[in-house]
Amino acid sequence: MKAAEITVLEEVELNNPIFIEALPGVGHVGKLVADHMVDELDATKFAEIYSPTFPPQVLVGEGGMIENMINELYYIKDLGEDGVDVIMITGNTQSLSPDGQYIVCEEILDFLGDFDISRIFTLGGVPTGQPIENPRVLGAASDEAHIEILKEVGVEMRSNDGGIVGASGLFLGLGMRRGIYGACLMGETPGYFIDAESAEGVLLKLADILNFEINTEKLDERAEETREMLARAQQMEQDLINRANAGNADDLRYIG
Amino acid sequence: MKAAEITVLEEVELNNPIFIEALPGVGHVGKLVADHMVDELDATKFAEIYSPTFPPQVLVGEGGMIENMINELYYIKDLGEDGVDVIMITGNTQSLSPDGQYIVCEEILDFLGDFDISRIFTLGGVPTGQPIENPRVLGAASDEAHIEILKEVGVEMRSNDGGIVGASGLFLGLGMRRGIYGACLMGETPGYFIDAESAEGVLLKLADILNFEINTEKLDERAEETREMLARAQQMEQDLINRANAGNADDLRYIG
Amino acid sequence: MKAAEITVLEEVELNNPIFIEALPGVGHVGKLVADHMVDELDATKFAEIYSPTFPPQVLVGEGGMIENMINELYYIKDLGEDGVDVIMITGNTQSLSPDGQYIVCEEILDFLGDFDISRIFTLGGVPTGQPIENPRVLGAASDEAHIEILKEVGVEMRSNDGGIVGASGLFLGLGMRRGIYGACLMGETPGYFIDAESAEGVLLKLADILNFEINTEKLDERAEETREMLARAQQMEQDLINRANAGNADDLRYIG
Amino acid sequence: MKAAEITVLEEVELNNPIFIEALPGVGHVGKLVADHMVDELDATKFAEIYSPTFPPQVLVGEGGMIENMINELYYIKDLGEDGVDVIMITGNTQSLSPDGQYIVCEEILDFLGDFDISRIFTLGGVPTGQPIENPRVLGAASDEAHIEILKEVGVEMRSNDGGIVGASGLFLGLGMRRGIYGACLMGETPGYFIDAESAEGVLLKLADILNFEINTEKLDERAEETREMLARAQQMEQDLINRANAGNADDLRYIG
Repeated sequence: MKAAEITVLEEVELNNPIFIEALPGVGHVGKLVADHMVDELDATKFAEIYSPTFPPQVLVGEGGMIENMINELYYIKDLGEDGVDVIMITGNTQSLSPDGQYIVCEEILDFLGDFDISRIFTLGGVPTGQPIENPRVLGAASDEAHIEILKEVGVEMRSNDGGIVGASGLFLGLGMRRGIYGACLMGETPGYFIDAESAEGVLLKLADILNFEINTEKLDERAEETREMLARAQQMEQDLINRANAGNADDLRYIG
Repeated sequence: MKAAEITVLEEVELNNPIFIEALPGVGHVGKLVADHMVDELDATKFAEIYSPTFPPQVLVGEGGMIENMINELYYIKDLGEDGVDVIMITGNTQSLSPDGQYIVCEEILDFLGDFDISRIFTLGGVPTGQPIENPRVLGAASDEAHIEILKEVGVEMRSNDGGIVGASGLFLGLGMRRGIYGACLMGETPGYFIDAESAEGVLLKLADILNFEINTEKLDERAEETREMLARAQQMEQDLINRANAGNADDLRYIG
Repeated sequence: MKAAEITVLEEVELNNPIFIEALPGVGHVGKLVADHMVDELDATKFAEIYSPTFPPQVLVGEGGMIENMINELYYIKDLGEDGVDVIMITGNTQSLSPDGQYIVCEEILDFLGDFDISRIFTLGGVPTGQPIENPRVLGAASDEAHIEILKEVGVEMRSNDGGIVGASGLFLGLGMRRGIYGACLMGETPGYFIDAESAEGVLLKLADILNFEINTEKLDERAEETREMLARAQQMEQDLINRANAGNADDLRYIG
Repeated sequence: MKAAEITVLEEVELNNPIFIEALPGVGHVGKLVADHMVDELDATKFAEIYSPTFPPQVLVGEGGMIENMINELYYIKDLGEDGVDVIMITGNTQSLSPDGQYIVCEEILDFLGDFDISRIFTLGGVPTGQPIENPRVLGAASDEAHIEILKEVGVEMRSNDGGIVGASGLFLGLGMRRGIYGACLMGETPGYFIDAESAEGVLLKLADILNFEINTEKLDERAEETREMLARAQQMEQDLINRANAGNADDLRYIG
């Protein structure tokens, strides 16, 4: 079984696309943005990524239908006034193991190599740990050009203040090693609930940078749906979590 | 050492068998069903699976006889009124590591490929975390056909409420990727004891779906035996667990 | 880097040797027995095993001399009245990761394949978690013949009461799969200190089974030395452990 | 993706260089020494090491510029009165996984094989867990010659008192296996803050052994900068750590 099995659903030609990472993370900020963009901007799914580094489970979706843990690649052609092509990665999970994070991100960049990616934007939340009014959108970038671009749209740069963990960090870091540069947009969020306001902030900055229009009205609604789904899941998983915390990973042997 | 070493004990020909997963998990529900079916339905063991992803130990069985951690494949020919063939997987463990779960399940499906599996049913418990009267049998499925089949026999479908962790989830998820569909039957159970009542509920729904008769009288007895065995094991392992929790996995270096 | 790098120090021919496992574990019982046998019975080291699955560290020995984490193979020729040849494995560690345990034990058995091992004995402690008077020697075995042999010398068999974790379990389990059988001798011990009394019990049962004489006078002395060394190590490592428990394995990044 | 990807920035010829390990660890002692030596002694970076065994993240540096987790190799030619050549490894991380520690250190020693390393010195802190006046520099070595060398400059040898965890231990241990010997210098430090005093002690002993002059005035200043950077990072990461401790490594799936 390969570390990342990529299934191509549609062969597509794109013009030096921008790559946007929006996998689930802190406050579900990136994931909310992704779901909203997919719906509002007529994004088309063209590939799925499956990996033994993902959590060893399936999800129970609407009406009892089982869903695999996956990452999905969407494309959007001719976006906004600049008419840029976009590839966006989202999904219901990230790799569970630290080295899995590296390996899967690297495999995805290998796969995207044929598309000749021009820039990378990664979207996420930055946890404040407490309620926050008027959440800011913070940024970091992998070259000076993108630092300037972020500043121009009013993104406040983080500085010498720690890391960006997971896919939002690694796609930029691995990209740098290939000569592809970009930036990370992080919405401030308490981190312990689905944060539509934070997601809206991030989305509007991205729209500003990439020069496209997007209606954010339904973001609240979408956040509400996600909240309800996670609440049900949380109740059901609470016992599992309690047992897992008591016995650590070893307890997995009794879960099934 | 391969991730899964499969030893074939008997070459057998089966007619598009149904694959049933019943490995140990929450409340030992699946495992109880498996043990009962093996005894009552004259199941024959035809293969054993051994893996370095299993817990690094052996079990001390009856009278001091040592047993390896294994998964076992049984077959039942011509089951019930429909005369279906069945392959059932059970055993004393599941893979310990997350990626081990994926890899071992995938290897087993590869091995079963020759048998041309028609459908997959996975059996387990769903933890309520507290005592429960009249435990329900909940379900989820990997295609619409199986959702309908479950509903017809009165299984209540879960919906948008979290995951199915371990082999019960992965066999269905990996099966879907091969075009083999099926369902998961989950008995509600407090989760912290061997639950014969929950197992009986699951078994009867399965019998209903697959159209076979089975006497469940001895399920209670079997649960009692399992309870006693685990109680002895628990007492002996308590100290190990305490030390493991104190020092985490690193403490393994002192266990031996 | 291979999972187990075996360095042969001396080519030796042995006559269907008995393999004895005595790596560090609960109460240091096995390790104490090994150290004592090496000294008293003129054992000769003939191979060293080194592995990336061992803890990522070196030990500071006498006078500041650094020692690698290793397993060591010793031979004893013509032992006792039966004149049997023996290969004994001991060392300062066991594999840290669960799959590492399997893989390293399997590699060692592969290496020992040329010697045509006749039987396997594994030595360890079984934790009582509290002070105990007159600790018993408990046993388990991988075939009926060895169960009888243990009973004949007054070893009390464990039964249906849990597992034998680590090398003491796996060498017997992996041995069974190769058609080599044997037994595990486990001295009862509180588990939280170096237990010479428990080690003496195990050693005397082993001597009884293999029909050799051994003076156990210096076992107490040896236990005292080990106690002092571990006390110094414990004091120094306490802070590391506290930090590791606080931050889990991730904290390793700051240890160096 | 290889376990260690080494990018050579400059081909350099060195005369039997001494290898110095100074990666981040307890009290940031080794790292502080490395940063100071790089600045004061005109060290030149000639290679970078990148690895999927490093933490799966990037760092946000000055002004929002993203930095990969890396190890770096520097050379210093003709150092001190003896005119020795030096290769020093430093960086912003060590491998996260235990076997990653072994594998990456081994790969680096393989790479350094061409340089014909003469000796190895590893630098770090040894945690006291509490405030300490006049911190000593403790030592350990992989041969008698280096034990004598350490004693001559007043380094107090540790003895039978535990391990040296991580790269500081493994480079010496893996070196021994290749016939390259050396020593570890460890400054006593409380372990929970950036300790310039401890670093100065270690640096002066190293200078004494290798016979070079170095101004340590700016060490305090450098420690202060590091302290501020880590304080900012700590505040931002506190929430992440809390969540990670609550849910263990599994929680990684929600970080991104």
